[in-house]
Amino acid sequence: MSELRLNPVTREWVIMAPRNGFHPADFRRPEARPNAPARLDTCPFCPGNELKTSGELYRIARAGAWSVRVVENKYAVLSRAGEKKTSVRGIMRSVAGTGLHEVIIETPIHNTGTALLDIKEVEDMLRTYKLRFIEAYKDERVEHVIIFKNHGEKAGTSITHPHSQLIATPVVPVRYRDRVLSAMNYHDYTGTCVICDIVGMEKAEGARILAESEHFLSFIPYAALSPFHTWIFPKRHGASFSDITDAEVIDFAAELKAALQRIFVGLEDPDYNYVIRSSRPVDATNRYCHWYLSLVPRVTETAGFELGTGMFINTVLPEESAAFLRSVRI
Amino acid sequence: MSELRLNPVTREWVIMAPRNGFHPADFRRPEARPNAPARLDTCPFCPGNELKTSGELYRIARAGAWSVRVVENKYAVLSRAGEKKTSVRGIMRSVAGTGLHEVIIETPIHNTGTALLDIKEVEDMLRTYKLRFIEAYKDERVEHVIIFKNHGEKAGTSITHPHSQLIATPVVPVRYRDRVLSAMNYHDYTGTCVICDIVGMEKAEGARILAESEHFLSFIPYAALSPFHTWIFPKRHGASFSDITDAEVIDFAAELKAALQRIFVGLEDPDYNYVIRSSRPVDATNRYCHWYLSLVPRVTETAGFELGTGMFINTVLPEESAAFLRSVRI
Repeated sequence: MSELRLNPVTREWVIMAPRNGFHPADFRRPEARPNAPARLDTCPFCPGNELKTSGELYRIARAGAWSVRVVENKYAVLSRAGEKKTSVRGIMRSVAGTGLHEVIIETPIHNTGTALLDIKEVEDMLRTYKLRFIEAYKDERVEHVIIFKNHGEKAGTSITHPHSQLIATPVVPVRYRDRVLSAMNYHDYTGTCVICDIVGMEKAEGARILAESEHFLSFIPYAALSPFHTWIFPKRHGASFSDITDAEVIDFAAELKAALQRIFVGLEDPDYNYVIRSSRPVDATNRYCHWYLSLVPRVTETAGFELGTGMFINTVLPEESAAFLRSVRI
Repeated sequence: MSELRLNPVTREWVIMAPRNGFHPADFRRPEARPNAPARLDTCPFCPGNELKTSGELYRIARAGAWSVRVVENKYAVLSRAGEKKTSVRGIMRSVAGTGLHEVIIETPIHNTGTALLDIKEVEDMLRTYKLRFIEAYKDERVEHVIIFKNHGEKAGTSITHPHSQLIATPVVPVRYRDRVLSAMNYHDYTGTCVICDIVGMEKAEGARILAESEHFLSFIPYAALSPFHTWIFPKRHGASFSDITDAEVIDFAAELKAALQRIFVGLEDPDYNYVIRSSRPVDATNRYCHWYLSLVPRVTETAGFELGTGMFINTVLPEESAAFLRSVRI
């Protein structure tokens, strides 16, 4: 019989319905990605093509060139220019599309992936995330900032060159607000932070852990929403990613690279998304929120059930996902 | 500049970020579906193979055979047998996977689609939905019932033979509860039902309407979450699909078939999901909830932004989606 498990962060149920036997091959990428050169003349993110991107916002200079660049997204879904204007017409409410939409180019090398970057490059990428995250919240129109990565077509990008994105919206996503309320209610009942409690619980159980370092714990969530769904939690309580220390950045880079390597090797470079879930810098000392990273390999499709209920069906037990990923040699 | 619009049902924002010009061809199915015969020996849903499906739950007999059959899902994610058992171990909460998972075989013909069914077949399918919906709620373990359809691989099915599904869960999805609370809050402020108010607003605006009949209104939502996302609302206030009258079933069948034909013809048979969002039969007279159908053609991918915020980015203005679908000859 299957089992429903509650995600204590979202209060959402996931149906754990493992099929007959777990076969990692069912989730591997069916064909290799097309070969690409280390530098591509037509790629706007490649060195030498800097003028093809509009508005460089930041760069880390390295050896006469750069290791990380941040630029305006050419297909920005929100505009940096313009006033925040709200319009209400009866039941129809809208807000002008001002905000930020930045691309973080993670490396000058075209045909690599975040999993394959040198650890120093991952550290530089994360330091850049932190800087841009803090910078974005200085804009008074901005209500919420999300940093995320899309890798592969199923994950929403057709661009090969390794890149992440930052979007700063002029509204608060209701889903984010619901998580905050949920964490607050949890704190009201227990006097503790739900994320801190999950860290304690996962360490006590052990079966879902992928790796533990001085500052971070990587594991498959008890109520993982899909096969190989991975959480990387900082062990120190803190609501905002903006407060990450440099010692933590170095540790976080190693955990993130290892998590990405595990799926790269074990599942042959699947499409994936990751996001950093974080409160605003001004809320950093809040006792009930706790930032973290969520990584979702896009190895399954969502269907009408997920659309209709918001619940997920996971065909691989989290303990099996964890055992498999731990067995991958990286 | 783009625009953010609020979905008054979910209180979620959608970023409307149209690209340069709307080209329906960008959303058409890139290749034709493989040819399939009208009857397939190996298909468990085809006539003559009735013994390949386990547990027939219902059938509509027609001319010595059947027009609609309901069977147990061979790959049920929840089990009809078993007691409802809850387990709490610290922060980990689980419920045994009891519940219902049924397949509604919509027609004996293998190589057709819901859009191409005879209108009488669609009516029979909807009458069957209603019967199974009411029946499912008689099970005391059941907390929530969702009826949905997956069409095509991106929508979560590789089975060609036209079918829908019913899943009855032993828990209440938090996302459903949030919608109910939202409708209740709306009613507290306005004294009205948000869905009834949307019907009035859409009729006054007109630009997003696809079709209106005596009992239903089909339209593209003001805050549509993706291109061609369609809502079909009953005009009569009622919280539960279980209360649909037979006159309404006939009307609903015509609206649903027309909506599916529009995307079938206009977008060359895209993958899609639809779901019926409804309260329980015992809540049918509730003044703030109102059942409806939501149809989502799967013509785009969700990415890290959607995962991270729960917000969607729609690259086609709802008014453009509506104008295009209205122009399709069906």
